[in-house]
Amino acid sequence: MFARTSLGLSNLRATTPSSAAPEPNPKQLQSNHSASDPHSEPQLRKLKGSAQLNRWSRARAVRSGRKLDRQNHRAATAVVEERQSGEGTWRNSPVAAVGGSEEKEEEDEAAVLAKSIYMVSDGTGWTVEHSVTAALGQFDHCLVDRGCPVNTHLFSGIDDSERLLKIIKQAAKEGSMLVYTLADPSMAEAAKQACRIWGVPSTDVLGPITEAVASHLGVLPSGVPRGAPGRSSHLTEEYFQRIEAIEFTIKQDDGALPQNLHKADIILVGVSRTGKTPLSTYLAHKGYKVANVPIVMGVGVPKTLFEVDPEKVFGLTINPVVLQTIRRARAKSLGFSEEVRSNYSEMDHVREELEFARKIFANNPSWPVIEVTGKAIEETAAVVLRLYHDRKNKCSMPRISKRY
Amino acid sequence: MFARTSLGLSNLRATTPSSAAPEPNPKQLQSNHSASDPHSEPQLRKLKGSAQLNRWSRARAVRSGRKLDRQNHRAATAVVEERQSGEGTWRNSPVAAVGGSEEKEEEDEAAVLAKSIYMVSDGTGWTVEHSVTAALGQFDHCLVDRGCPVNTHLFSGIDDSERLLKIIKQAAKEGSMLVYTLADPSMAEAAKQACRIWGVPSTDVLGPITEAVASHLGVLPSGVPRGAPGRSSHLTEEYFQRIEAIEFTIKQDDGALPQNLHKADIILVGVSRTGKTPLSTYLAHKGYKVANVPIVMGVGVPKTLFEVDPEKVFGLTINPVVLQTIRRARAKSLGFSEEVRSNYSEMDHVREELEFARKIFANNPSWPVIEVTGKAIEETAAVVLRLYHDRKNKCSMPRISKRY
Repeated sequence: MFARTSLGLSNLRATTPSSAAPEPNPKQLQSNHSASDPHSEPQLRKLKGSAQLNRWSRARAVRSGRKLDRQNHRAATAVVEERQSGEGTWRNSPVAAVGGSEEKEEEDEAAVLAKSIYMVSDGTGWTVEHSVTAALGQFDHCLVDRGCPVNTHLFSGIDDSERLLKIIKQAAKEGSMLVYTLADPSMAEAAKQACRIWGVPSTDVLGPITEAVASHLGVLPSGVPRGAPGRSSHLTEEYFQRIEAIEFTIKQDDGALPQNLHKADIILVGVSRTGKTPLSTYLAHKGYKVANVPIVMGVGVPKTLFEVDPEKVFGLTINPVVLQTIRRARAKSLGFSEEVRSNYSEMDHVREELEFARKIFANNPSWPVIEVTGKAIEETAAVVLRLYHDRKNKCSMPRISKRY
Repeated sequence: MFARTSLGLSNLRATTPSSAAPEPNPKQLQSNHSASDPHSEPQLRKLKGSAQLNRWSRARAVRSGRKLDRQNHRAATAVVEERQSGEGTWRNSPVAAVGGSEEKEEEDEAAVLAKSIYMVSDGTGWTVEHSVTAALGQFDHCLVDRGCPVNTHLFSGIDDSERLLKIIKQAAKEGSMLVYTLADPSMAEAAKQACRIWGVPSTDVLGPITEAVASHLGVLPSGVPRGAPGRSSHLTEEYFQRIEAIEFTIKQDDGALPQNLHKADIILVGVSRTGKTPLSTYLAHKGYKVANVPIVMGVGVPKTLFEVDPEKVFGLTINPVVLQTIRRARAKSLGFSEEVRSNYSEMDHVREELEFARKIFANNPSWPVIEVTGKAIEETAAVVLRLYHDRKNKCSMPRISKRY
């Protein structure tokens, strides 16, 4: 299969990006290349003093209204020209919004500062998106204040080399980096070579894991993208289980049908706005039937909750100040009347309701109580499932095990 | 930060796995090590003739009831002994189910054939789980017939080196491989070194992407795991938008509140069992407000559907034979009466209803119609979002763009 690679790349040099595109900075190229080399850790440290400061100074320059060097502007213009010629276009991009006025020019320069990440997949693209989002989590400290803004572009279902090379060409023009998952080894090799030739820093997300798994199992990978004809159908037992879990979870939302609580795998209990509903549907997509039961002061909880296996019940709690903030936002968006709003989101009421919940939890000491303050849905889900599997399997080291 | 690494590993050799654990096969070790080396592609091909055939012949031996060599048995026994000593235990594992009888011994041998993949993360672990699942998709051809069964074990929230090393030690004993995401460079380095010393083949999922992004942005990664104290709170605009999307989507499920259709970002239309509900909640978790409208023969669809922006409406269709299979399973699980069942899942009715849907789609040619047969939820979602963003942004190359 690797033999096809050289064929697919035979005319690569002939289609090198036009001279309208910015010349790649050789220094940048070098450090980019080394980034995909696992033996280049020390390289990374050099960045702090040079490129990072450079970028911060640029960001300051843009905020203060100073002009930047013209090279960036030329790069943007080149892309816009190409847009007008009708190839490789996008209308939503900040660069493409460039006009003629001074103000727009400034916007343009701010936009040029946003670095692009191209994500390419021959399948759904969710793996590459997930990985890039997780990696970007390591740069929160500079993304938040827009000191190093990033635009990501996901291209999914890219299963022929023509479209692949067109995207990489565009990435080269935009000075973007490429992160890809391509099951077909000849496509992966084509991406790697094209990126090398066109100076696009690139990372293969699944290649190393797939190779390691192949070696571990002693079996060659199929090289066929998920969803391609010939891949096994999705009508497995797991598929039906997942659909059933999702439908169950929706029907059980917000305390509905308390008589069905015994059918749930996981039951979430907490006051309003502790994130029970989104957490439930997230867990349902992982195949768990989830019921969620609200705690409302004065109303209490259905008595069936105390009749089910307590091992599957999880309490959710939250910091009262944060809860009040969330409830105020909620009350506003729902257009609650003043009276309802104060009952729902005033601090005294919030504290009393959390205290009411705390007492219920205290009376049921076998329910773990999870603090959700500051946690994303995925994070709370990880805690719930770790505890759930731990209680079920009595492992010394909590783990979620699956069989394939 | 890398300086801490050597400290954390100073007593590593002293805690080398006990002699009760199976001796690693040097040949296997070699190929495992090369798997994490990006320059070792040709190595992979050699596998087909040796290890793979070996495994298949073992699998056949197990199915035919023949005994295998005793080394595998010893390995299993070692793990079970350890279970009894109370360390590194798990009850749900097939190996731990070993008893004394002949039959169980055979089961044991089949269980030993199942290769383990340990997944370790200092965060939720969803990235590493997602990546391993995607990589395992490349081995469907052997997982399905259980020719090379795999057990995965996810360890999330591993944020101290003591627990990390305990897990890697256990992986070494079990002959497992390790796939990890560790934000703290000293933890990642500790994992790498421990795996090298103990002969555990390992792959760092996010390391290469994070390094490449760092180089691209000119900013050092924070090295702080997601969810750790000090990381930014989740109460961003995006968080509220996502929660709102999920709640909207649940309220709109199955044609409820047709007067709200204009508030949806995406509207899914299709006959029963085309997967509208799971697809809706999946898209909602990605931040889109989704309404789904069922097509039922003789009932039709709400007229508000024809008053909304047709650019956001998507038709779902499915192969009639597959639809009948799914509906039969559904009717059975819901305990439908004979009469209802035949109306719902008999072929004539299925065909007529799909034809009824086809006519509605034909009258609304601007709605894309997506064939969901054989597609997983994620795959249909990828198609919907590709079209949705394409129509919205009018790109020449369909993409989903985001700003960070």
